[in-house]
Amino acid sequence: MSTGTGNPMDVIESVSGLQSRADAYRSAGRRIALVPTMGALHEGHLALVREAKRHADGVWVSIFVNPTQFGAGEDLSRYPRTLEADLAHCRAEGVDAVFLPDAAEMYPPGSQTWVEVNELAKPLCGKSRPEHFRGVATVVSKLFLAAKPHVAVFGEKDFQQLAVIRRMVVDLGFDVRVVGVPIVRESDGLALSSRNQHLDASTRSQALSLSRALDSAQRALDAGIRAVPALLHLVAVELDKAPAGRIDYAELRDPDSLKPVGNPLDAPTLLALAVVFMLPDGREVRLIDNRVLKPQPPGSAFSEKQP
Amino acid sequence: MSTGTGNPMDVIESVSGLQSRADAYRSAGRRIALVPTMGALHEGHLALVREAKRHADGVWVSIFVNPTQFGAGEDLSRYPRTLEADLAHCRAEGVDAVFLPDAAEMYPPGSQTWVEVNELAKPLCGKSRPEHFRGVATVVSKLFLAAKPHVAVFGEKDFQQLAVIRRMVVDLGFDVRVVGVPIVRESDGLALSSRNQHLDASTRSQALSLSRALDSAQRALDAGIRAVPALLHLVAVELDKAPAGRIDYAELRDPDSLKPVGNPLDAPTLLALAVVFMLPDGREVRLIDNRVLKPQPPGSAFSEKQP
Repeated sequence: MSTGTGNPMDVIESVSGLQSRADAYRSAGRRIALVPTMGALHEGHLALVREAKRHADGVWVSIFVNPTQFGAGEDLSRYPRTLEADLAHCRAEGVDAVFLPDAAEMYPPGSQTWVEVNELAKPLCGKSRPEHFRGVATVVSKLFLAAKPHVAVFGEKDFQQLAVIRRMVVDLGFDVRVVGVPIVRESDGLALSSRNQHLDASTRSQALSLSRALDSAQRALDAGIRAVPALLHLVAVELDKAPAGRIDYAELRDPDSLKPVGNPLDAPTLLALAVVFMLPDGREVRLIDNRVLKPQPPGSAFSEKQP
Repeated sequence: MSTGTGNPMDVIESVSGLQSRADAYRSAGRRIALVPTMGALHEGHLALVREAKRHADGVWVSIFVNPTQFGAGEDLSRYPRTLEADLAHCRAEGVDAVFLPDAAEMYPPGSQTWVEVNELAKPLCGKSRPEHFRGVATVVSKLFLAAKPHVAVFGEKDFQQLAVIRRMVVDLGFDVRVVGVPIVRESDGLALSSRNQHLDASTRSQALSLSRALDSAQRALDAGIRAVPALLHLVAVELDKAPAGRIDYAELRDPDSLKPVGNPLDAPTLLALAVVFMLPDGREVRLIDNRVLKPQPPGSAFSEKQP
């Protein structure tokens, strides 16, 4: 199904140009997979591209640092931009086309239309970033309307974003299949993120507290501990080992509804973490990580002692 | 370009069914024109269908009384429903397919996604119906995503609705051409509306005050009167002739931005009216009407005396 790496890669800057390409693709019976990104591509993104290839004849990558998903005081201006390297990555992966709009192309003068997903956008990242998911849902809608993809591929690292997009696709009836791809990690466990490149050595080492907290909780579950306070205590113990980190949230939530869960855990449960790290130069880097914890069936491990 | 009246008309109830039909149409190089309606079809709707035929190979009419564009206490439950007659009208006009979803098909369980157009939705009807245009923009987005039309046709009677939809199409990048169709009127000037059938003879007669007010303002402009207070006074004089009517708004606005206009008028200007009529049985019927007033070029008529 893949077009392979033999074809030249096109870079398209206009919505109408991409729509024409989509129409031509679809008329020819070819399937389109879209991988929306903000650039600064790393192995996590490349995993999305490789997954996308499995679902379509042509993989299209969009690169757009979407201003409306950054709040006031967030890191829009210093979000990493590595365009030449990004294009080289895409070429090497056999990407068919890169969509590279500027802000005026995505937000025409006088823009005033927003796509909002309500309940799912409120907890977790939505609490400290109240307009973030409105920006995400709006720009993803625009990207879908521009690329007209059959399939769109997103990373599970942005777990809440993926939940918001899945909900939006169902609610509005986008004729797009959304595919999630598991988190890609460094060999020591750090989840890949474009923001990792801001980390100095000491902070990077402390940032391992996130993945260690996730592992610690799963190990506890494997040992039969299903009490929510006990699990959150173990998470806090790990996160507290990072003195440069300030916990934004560390929560157990239903993976579909993102609603709080009952105690003890009796079904797969999202453990979602966000920690803000203070760098030596005073700047902050906010990292997120998550894992869907799997409780052991009763009797399959040590039985849990209720206090 | 028209398929004529020889083909059988399909009635489709599911979004996925309509999307499959759209894909097949588009793959065959055929153009789709969508006419979104809430049913209770009258000659105004049929004018939309006839215009749609000029732009496409197949005209699709959606019939869906959209609950989310009615506020609490509005007339959702008694909005006229005349399905058999509607289908007969569509058949007679050579409509290719009717999309007839139920509310659960358009709003899946757990729905929480809204499309909102901000500034344009605030004045005029938005003032007394604060969530109306959110419902309109959301359902029209869903209809566009279901029917994948090349062209969509709307009446200019709902002038603000048309402005909101045009803005949404530009902002989100829908690959749909929006076509507006002039208001269709009875021979005595009453703008066609599904709600007219609620009117008794006396109220119907008083409802002519709307179109008379529009005409009165244009006649004044033709005579060189361009002062906003003078024009609004003439409008009020006409509307006050309807004792059963309560003015919701009577405003002069820029036809594109819907912003208030300067004094005197020096460019085409929307005169928009909404009047709530009290029926003898105590129920209310809210009617709207509008006209884009055209000032005469200076010197082409009596020159206006500034007070």
